[in-house]
Amino acid sequence: MTLPPSTQHPLRWAVLGTGFIANKVINVGMRRAGHVLQAVGSRSIDKAQEFADRNGFKTAYGSYQEAIDDPEVDAVYIALPSVFHEEWAIKCAKAKKHVLCEKPVAPTTAQVKNIIQTCKDNNVVFLDGTFFKHHPRLAALRQLVNSGELGKVNSVNSHFSFLMSADVSTSADAALKQIRVNPAVEPTGVLGDMAWYTVRFILTAYNYELPTSVSCTVTRKNEFTGAAEQVIGHLLFPDSRNAIFEASFAHVSNQRSCITGDKGAVALDDTFLTSSFYPITQESALAYEAPASDSFTVTVKRGEWTKREIETGGRLQEEWMAKDFEECVAGRKKWEQWADETIVIHTVLDALWASAQQSGASVSL
Amino acid sequence: MTLPPSTQHPLRWAVLGTGFIANKVINVGMRRAGHVLQAVGSRSIDKAQEFADRNGFKTAYGSYQEAIDDPEVDAVYIALPSVFHEEWAIKCAKAKKHVLCEKPVAPTTAQVKNIIQTCKDNNVVFLDGTFFKHHPRLAALRQLVNSGELGKVNSVNSHFSFLMSADVSTSADAALKQIRVNPAVEPTGVLGDMAWYTVRFILTAYNYELPTSVSCTVTRKNEFTGAAEQVIGHLLFPDSRNAIFEASFAHVSNQRSCITGDKGAVALDDTFLTSSFYPITQESALAYEAPASDSFTVTVKRGEWTKREIETGGRLQEEWMAKDFEECVAGRKKWEQWADETIVIHTVLDALWASAQQSGASVSL
Repeated sequence: MTLPPSTQHPLRWAVLGTGFIANKVINVGMRRAGHVLQAVGSRSIDKAQEFADRNGFKTAYGSYQEAIDDPEVDAVYIALPSVFHEEWAIKCAKAKKHVLCEKPVAPTTAQVKNIIQTCKDNNVVFLDGTFFKHHPRLAALRQLVNSGELGKVNSVNSHFSFLMSADVSTSADAALKQIRVNPAVEPTGVLGDMAWYTVRFILTAYNYELPTSVSCTVTRKNEFTGAAEQVIGHLLFPDSRNAIFEASFAHVSNQRSCITGDKGAVALDDTFLTSSFYPITQESALAYEAPASDSFTVTVKRGEWTKREIETGGRLQEEWMAKDFEECVAGRKKWEQWADETIVIHTVLDALWASAQQSGASVSL
Repeated sequence: MTLPPSTQHPLRWAVLGTGFIANKVINVGMRRAGHVLQAVGSRSIDKAQEFADRNGFKTAYGSYQEAIDDPEVDAVYIALPSVFHEEWAIKCAKAKKHVLCEKPVAPTTAQVKNIIQTCKDNNVVFLDGTFFKHHPRLAALRQLVNSGELGKVNSVNSHFSFLMSADVSTSADAALKQIRVNPAVEPTGVLGDMAWYTVRFILTAYNYELPTSVSCTVTRKNEFTGAAEQVIGHLLFPDSRNAIFEASFAHVSNQRSCITGDKGAVALDDTFLTSSFYPITQESALAYEAPASDSFTVTVKRGEWTKREIETGGRLQEEWMAKDFEECVAGRKKWEQWADETIVIHTVLDALWASAQQSGASVSL
């Protein structure tokens, strides 16, 4: 299954899980990329059928395994809470189905490595579901950093927040129903959720070099579940380079990042959702329009901030991710380096989480 | 001397020190405010005379005390390294001369309090030399924060950097001559210098409330002097509010800050130098033109970033500081609340420095 049926037909997807993120990625990603929406798996056949009907999937199953085993399925998008990822990603791989897995990929790096190794052993593609990294401007950004135009990069700053509905702070029942703040299914809370992105941005700027030490402080916890709702942290790299980040469920939507070197800096005020700010609801998911173009702002030396336009082809980043996945399945792109990056991110997240358990004490890597 | 001669004539200044900052503040501040440049004090009469001739001061003295004692001097601007501030500020106060003192005001909060109390006891004005806080947009920013438009503010992020000339990293002699990286005269290095501003910005956003704990890590030291050249840190406030900052001598000029609440955010990409980026040299100091207007960018709720213009009267911030000082001397504005803010900043800096001595361990206030 190295070069699977998708070289003869469009990639055929199953999705495990029927929540918000499944709805978004399926519609903004796979559908726009021209893929086939084949099967939905849920523990509830009613939920599966409702999701399948609403989004135009061919088949609904009342279990995850049935969706995986559907012979018309080439690839499985795992949109479950992270504690379930290892089990189901491995079942996918063993069924010779390619795997797109939501982040955080798993609660521990050991589990992440197990998933990725199993995919390698079974000759199937593995990608984590971080769409922003597949947007062409990320490659352009990395090229800018590596071109030397910014000089020696020694500072990265990244902020990602959105405002969770207030009822998770006022109702224990609401808090337990919101998986983002339910440690039983998402043990690292906002660290694995929003800080995954800020850490990934930082590591992109530093070419996925491991930091020498990190620190993370949980500055807000859900009062009912104890989940981390807001974290700040820093990463220290060799040769006096550093990074700071914040991730929060308690602020208005904000996603500002900046990479600073000794010759220039580059700033993105829309780091993770790109320049098209699109509120996602179940109802509007089919209606997204791609922006005409995206851009980021760069300043060189001691001059003013000047805007530099990067042509990105007008696709939304979820669609770029689906296209990259398709390229990997077809063997035209290699997924292994991206998977190595996934492991680096998780290694750093493990250290950050260890620091958070010790009130922000420095943790060496 | 509560209402001194300046109600009859323009304020008459002495300056102690003849360095870069003296040149800048005298020309961009006092001169543009219409004040009298009366006397220059330096340990070297040659330096004093050269500075006086170049900038149009009436008299040059080969000592600080003579400049203070000049009977035509109403106020003294202390532009010396911070280890000398306590001694000379107190001599000014006892000579009944008003005091404008560069930041950091002194190496310890105890010294800062001693200076301010002595000014109170002698009925003279004390202001620290932080020009950005006298710019009208800071008041507008504070008004915005306190209006509730941003909701509950629970995150502040501030970055301030500039690139020091490379020779302080390659020559011990150059490093020792650059007072910013000479701990004998500026013990806290970049923390008292650039991080003074980021901390002041953070405290402004939180109305000068004391944090409950802080952490600071020195991520770059001068290899010859050991001075802190780059720091990152965070401040934790009650009720899950926090702030992170970075200050560095090793990056390109960058001064991005953001205040985020649960309803909106406000961002300044030119926090400390305002929107007019003006490179300062000895030669160009007389030629600054005020910008027609300044602005900052604010976003509300989940919308796009939208620019909101704040009318600021077209003065540069150094001139606003000189004008505020004049108002305090004339008794039309009260300086004591600003001095209380100075003490809060120094209290936080002391805690940050204590943390830095313990590799970033959390320090309670």
